[in-house]
Order: sequence, then C-alpha cells, then structure tokens
Amino acid sequence: MNAPLPTASVNSPWQLARRAARMNPSVIREILKVTEKPGIISFAGGLPSPKTFPVAEFAAACAKVLKDDPQGALQYAASEGHKPLREMVAEQLRAQAAAAGVTWAVDPAQVLITTGSQQGLDLVAKVLVDAGSKILVESPTYLGAVMAFTPMEPEVVSVTSDEHGVDIDALRQAVLGGPQHGQSPEAAQQTSASDRPRFLYVLPNFQNPTGRSMSEARRAALSTAAAELSLPLIEDNPYGDLWFDTPPPAPLSSRNPEGCIYLGSFSKVLAPGLRLGFLVAPKAVYPKLLQAKQAADLHSPGFNQRMIAEVMKDGFLDRHVPTIRALYKAQRDAMLEALANNFGAMPVDASATELDNRLCWNSPAGGMFLWARLPAGMSATDLLPLAVAQGVAFVPGAPFYADHGDERTLRLSFVTPSVEEIHRGVAALALAMKAYAAECRA
Amino acid sequence: MNAPLPTASVNSPWQLARRAARMNPSVIREILKVTEKPGIISFAGGLPSPKTFPVAEFAAACAKVLKDDPQGALQYAASEGHKPLREMVAEQLRAQAAAAGVTWAVDPAQVLITTGSQQGLDLVAKVLVDAGSKILVESPTYLGAVMAFTPMEPEVVSVTSDEHGVDIDALRQAVLGGPQHGQSPEAAQQTSASDRPRFLYVLPNFQNPTGRSMSEARRAALSTAAAELSLPLIEDNPYGDLWFDTPPPAPLSSRNPEGCIYLGSFSKVLAPGLRLGFLVAPKAVYPKLLQAKQAADLHSPGFNQRMIAEVMKDGFLDRHVPTIRALYKAQRDAMLEALANNFGAMPVDASATELDNRLCWNSPAGGMFLWARLPAGMSATDLLPLAVAQGVAFVPGAPFYADHGDERTLRLSFVTPSVEEIHRGVAALALAMKAYAAECRA
Repeated sequence: MNAPLPTASVNSPWQLARRAARMNPSVIREILKVTEKPGIISFAGGLPSPKTFPVAEFAAACAKVLKDDPQGALQYAASEGHKPLREMVAEQLRAQAAAAGVTWAVDPAQVLITTGSQQGLDLVAKVLVDAGSKILVESPTYLGAVMAFTPMEPEVVSVTSDEHGVDIDALRQAVLGGPQHGQSPEAAQQTSASDRPRFLYVLPNFQNPTGRSMSEARRAALSTAAAELSLPLIEDNPYGDLWFDTPPPAPLSSRNPEGCIYLGSFSKVLAPGLRLGFLVAPKAVYPKLLQAKQAADLHSPGFNQRMIAEVMKDGFLDRHVPTIRALYKAQRDAMLEALANNFGAMPVDASATELDNRLCWNSPAGGMFLWARLPAGMSATDLLPLAVAQGVAFVPGAPFYADHGDERTLRLSFVTPSVEEIHRGVAALALAMKAYAAECRA
Repeated sequence: MNAPLPTASVNSPWQLARRAARMNPSVIREILKVTEKPGIISFAGGLPSPKTFPVAEFAAACAKVLKDDPQGALQYAASEGHKPLREMVAEQLRAQAAAAGVTWAVDPAQVLITTGSQQGLDLVAKVLVDAGSKILVESPTYLGAVMAFTPMEPEVVSVTSDEHGVDIDALRQAVLGGPQHGQSPEAAQQTSASDRPRFLYVLPNFQNPTGRSMSEARRAALSTAAAELSLPLIEDNPYGDLWFDTPPPAPLSSRNPEGCIYLGSFSKVLAPGLRLGFLVAPKAVYPKLLQAKQAADLHSPGFNQRMIAEVMKDGFLDRHVPTIRALYKAQRDAMLEALANNFGAMPVDASATELDNRLCWNSPAGGMFLWARLPAGMSATDLLPLAVAQGVAFVPGAPFYADHGDERTLRLSFVTPSVEEIHRGVAALALAMKAYAAECRA
C-alpha cells in the first residue's frame, strides 16, 4: 500500500493513480487468447450458447421500438433505467420468490438498470469500499467481481467454502476476528468496528467457477449469521434461471432485503451483447448507487432497455428459458458421460486417498460450469498446454481464488461446444492427462 | 478528508465508502425536475434535437446486423470495442486533422470504445486520480465531468478562463505554484512533484456550458505550455462536429498525442440513447484504461457498436452532420435574434459599466449552448422560478464552476425547442426579468 507512486515511464507526463498498479489484465482473458486457435474445442470460455439468442424476437423488437417510440429510445434518459423494464424485473423477482415459498416485496423503485451486472459490481465497490476496506469472498470466487472491486483498493479476504457455499464458522471468524490460518493469536485481536468487512460477495446459484449451489440449510444459516453480524451481502445471480431439474432455493436477498444488494443479468437468458443487467438495493444505499451510476455512464442504453422490455412482455422468458435449460442440461449430461467414459465413473463412497489419486468432478444442478480436480501432484496450469496440443482447452482454477489458488482445480464450460464436441474434447483431455502423467513420472 | 466514516443510518449494516459523502445528485438534474412541467419551453436541458436522429437508418442497420452477424452482435466481445468501428473512428480523426492542416496518426489500436464519453471520464479518473490528487478544470466546466471525477476524491482546481479558454498564466501558476487568489505567499511554495496536477480537463469546442471555443492561438499556447509543464491534457470533444460556419482548429491531441487523452461521442451526431463514445489514448496509459474498462462493464454493447458502424459506413456522417449543423445554426440565429429583440442588440464597444447593467450573451460558433449573464446584483437562481412562472426554463450557471460560481450566469440551450418556441421562450424570459427587476427594486 505504501509503494512509490507508479508512473507510466520515466519521460512520460502521466502519473498513474496508485490503484493502477493493482489493475492487471484478466488472467482468464490471457489464457483464452492462448486457446483461441482454429479447431480447438473450448471448455474455457464463459460464453452462453449462441443457439439460445432469440434473434428473430430481437429483430421484431428493434423494428417495433423504432416505430413506436424512436425519440424515447434514442434520447438521453433517466439513470434509474426504463420504467417498464424496472417493473418487469420487480415483478419477476416477486414471482420467483413466491414460487420458492417466500414473500419478497421488490419495489420497482429499488431496481437500477446497469450496463451488465458487471457494472453493478463496479457501483457496489465505489459506494461501499474504501482503500484498505476488508471485503469477503467465497473460495474460489468469480474473478470478474474481484477485478471490479480491485480499483477501489480493498483487502480481499477468502472465506473457506465447501460444496454448499461459504463455511459459517469461517465467516464468523473472518468478521469477528480470532486466530486464523497463519495468523498469530496476538494479531487476531477482536476486530474493531472500522475494520469490519464491508460485505460478503456471494454467488449462490451454479457459481462461476465451480457450478456449485448453496443449499437451503446453508442459505438459512448464512442469512441468520449475516443479520447477527450486521454483515451486508452482495448476492450475484446471473445463472439462477438456468436450473436443470428444480429451481434453486429462495434468494438470500428475499430473506433480509434491508441487508442485501441483489445483482441480476439478462446476459444468460437473452444475450450478453446488449450489456444489460440490474441491481436491487435497499433504501439505505440505493441513492448512492444511483449517483455512482449517473457519474459512470449517465444511463444504460435506452434503446437496448426497450428492446429487452419488448421481448420480455407477454411472458416470453417463461417459454424461452426452459429451452435453454433443456439444452444446457443435455450438454452437462454429455460432459458427465464423457468424463465417466474416459476417467471412470466417480465412485460413490471413495476414500480421501482414492479421490486424491484420480480426476474428480462435480455434477452442477444448473448453470454453465463444471469443476474438476486433478490427481495429487498435478497442476492444471501445467496440463493446459498439453491439452491445447491435443485440441482441447479449459481454464485452470487457481486464478479464481483470492488467496492461495488450488493448482489442481480446473473449470469446464459445457454450454458452448456441441454434444459431439464435448465427447471429442473430453477424450482429448484424457490423452493430455496421460501425456502429463507420463511427464510427471519421467 | 478526515471526516468520520459515513454510515447509511444508525441501525443500518451498511458502512458507506468515504467517497460516497462527496457524491451528490446532479444539481442540473434536480433543476430539470422543477422545469419539467407541461407547456414549459425549456432552454434548460442538454438534449440533442430528436429531429436529428436517423431513425430509418438505425432500423435498417438493426435488421442488417441481426441478419448478417447475429452471433457476433449478441455475444460477449472484446473490451477494446468492435474493430471496424475503432478503424472508422481512427480514420475520421485522421481525416479531420488533415482537413485542419495537421497530421494526427491515430492508430485504431489506440481507440477504446466506451459506454458514452461519460464512461471515458470515469475511466480517466480511475487510472489517473488518487484521493487528494489535484486536477485542473476550466472555469466554468462541464459538471458531468466533475461528477465523474469526484468518486476518486480529487482536489478540483478551477483555472481562470476567458472567452478563448483557459488563461495560460493562470495555468502555469496552478501547476508550478505561486501566490494565488486568497492564498498567503507562505502557503504558495513551489509545488512539489507529487503535488503536481494529474491533468487539465478541457472542452475546447463549443463548450458545455458556455458555448465558447478555444482559438487557434490559445490552443497553440496551451499545447506548448502543457508540454513544458509535463501536464497531461484530457480533451473532451462531444460537440466539435457541430460547427456552423467553419470547422474548429485542430485538436490539442493532434499537437501532442503522447500527452493527451481525447474523448469523443456518437451522442450528438447520431443519438445519445445508444450510449456509445470513444477515447484515444497514448500507449503509456491505454492498457490501464482498457483494464479499467473491462472491470467496469466488460465491454460496450456489441450490438450498438455494429449498428453505428453499419450506419456510418459509406460516409453517412458526411451527409447527415451538415443537416444537424444547419438546423442548430438556424436555432442559434433565432435565439440571437430573439435576445436582441427583447433585450436590445449587444453593443459593439460598450463600457464595462454598460455591460454590467444589462443582459449580456455570447454568440457560439457551434454546439448546443449559449451563455448569458444577468445585470449586476441579479442571481440566475432567483430568476429561475419567475421564469418558470412565465413558462420558460434555463439552467443557472453557478453549478458549473468548480469553485465560486458566478451567480449572474445562465446557460441557454437552443437546440431542443423550435424557432417559434425560441421566440416565445425568450419573450417569456424578458417578462420574468421585468418581474425580477421590479422585485429587486421593491
């Protein structure tokens, strides 16, 4: 934090802000460049399947918007967003909560339309994070969120997490202090009020990168603990609609609306290229988020907001999203089958040692990603070039950890390649593993 | 700077960042709310005339983009922006500089597409401003820029400006130190390197709010001084294409590309509702601006970028922008005529006292705004409710000053109302002035 102020170069007039030294190219983006070779089957990207984009509906919506209200669509507009779209978002969230058995009285006045949910993360950081503020994230967590928070110079603290989400005891310890891993008891004095974390960032449904979801029991426990600890939650939910068999449990925000900011996106249910998302915030923070939004880009494109409102009216998502779920479920099934075919079925009651000596993976109940772990002693970063040589790409998992990354982990996206490509890609991965194992033995 | 950390309320879990205390609703926006009554003739807003939006061309472009490359338009895309659009921007800037008699070798690799040029300001602040950094602005300056810079907690310093732009002596003093207005000689020691301003923000063409433009002589002097002082320039040029009789002199960025960041916009030549602008930055800062862009919203909407590229190809702007210039020039002429009719022609060789006792205004050579000044002793803020009562609205000029606002100034937009409305509106303003003068005498 006390490093000398960076300059762009010795003879340059540009003196960069201190935060610039912490801003770096996305590791994932750099990896993706390596894997963008012709003919490579990519499990690496986080791209929705373009088959799911409702192109004809968008074309009709463009024509209608430009016919009915061109001036409204093309003029400067309110920073809060297009009112009918904000109303649709509120109505949809209320209906989803009701279907999950809870009441969540989302008011359209709490909805702020953002330039993708990525912008929601930028606004949250601006309004809640000072240089040196502690913020908590899952382990691993969405790398793009850490990138959005970084310019505000937080201290990002990973909270131990398992297949159901953050560990509640670890969370209490992170908030209240107490000896932590690698910390002396003396250093672990009761945390003073000003050192308290500004928030916990969580992605409860079909998380990026792990594909895991937070169980109902864990949500209830987290919600209770956060309220007790006065710990705000930033709930990011871009994938929640992409469930395969049953909808996920009710959102954390519905359990304690005053203590949560909810981030949503149209990128995974309609298309990312329109760059529209939204946030739902309590009155205590909404006005500041709105001011930050206005300063950041005045408002999100009114034309795009009307396009999406036009497509969404008359319940289009109720017909469209099930087709995405069916497609992605079939592709997840293909990947699970291909993994079992090439690496042997995941054993039901395996010992830790047994699991340590094989490739392991989870079975996500929705979303776009599957999480895998290599046998002990292997590194996904080292495996990657061998995989690319065999014609398949993935993303190593280590960069998704805010602290020490687990070098054995990797993320496999199952939504962009076809079923046939999934089978070929996993077979290629098995060949790369064999080559890697031979190298390790050599 | 050392104020206690703000919290949203006593019982709230939300602890706001220190910068949140400095973020406020736009004064202009609050004023606009007052003036948005039915039947009011508004000279207040900064909205382009919707008559200028090429609706048919946009409709054709939407259909073509969704037919030719729906997957490219609707998928996630590169943070830098759509390559053909970046090439068009570079080519246009090179051609405009050549027409102004200078060579500006803009490389598409230096062009970053932003979510409106407002986002360019946000990115500049993130990359260049630390808490407490001094930044320089014109007096008055674009309020939206100050709002964009504010979250990074700069010390905003106004540099004395006249009808040609910033005063070069005042600029040297602001950079190098020396006794300034209201500052003791002891406090004005030579400014140390770390206290040097991070940049000067300038709007050289048809400035918002004043409508004034920087002369060729002032540009040359500023460019030389900035290079000598190692002072980076942020050149904001949303209005430069809207000249009425002759194009403006060459941009500052063309004179010293390594020392300038140039911000441009499609909002005034095509439409603001697509929220697209761009910046051109030297290699010393481009990578950091790109990383800040990626963290802020991943990329600007690819669909919109393709729409604009499709409309712009084949030289559409060369045919379209002259129609905007002709429209706005006729409306400026109407406003000048109406002002002369109602307040008497502006005298050619008037004494300072004479000018002090009448309404004065300038005659902008382009853009959207005219700047006026009330007789001594009057306040535009006090005049506003009387004007609204007469059915006309404007924006007081004081909020546009980063330091002490000139209460007598006001901004009149001439582009949104019709010529007939301009005449009625100025007549109503004259009635309000009479009522105000009577109040002042009472």
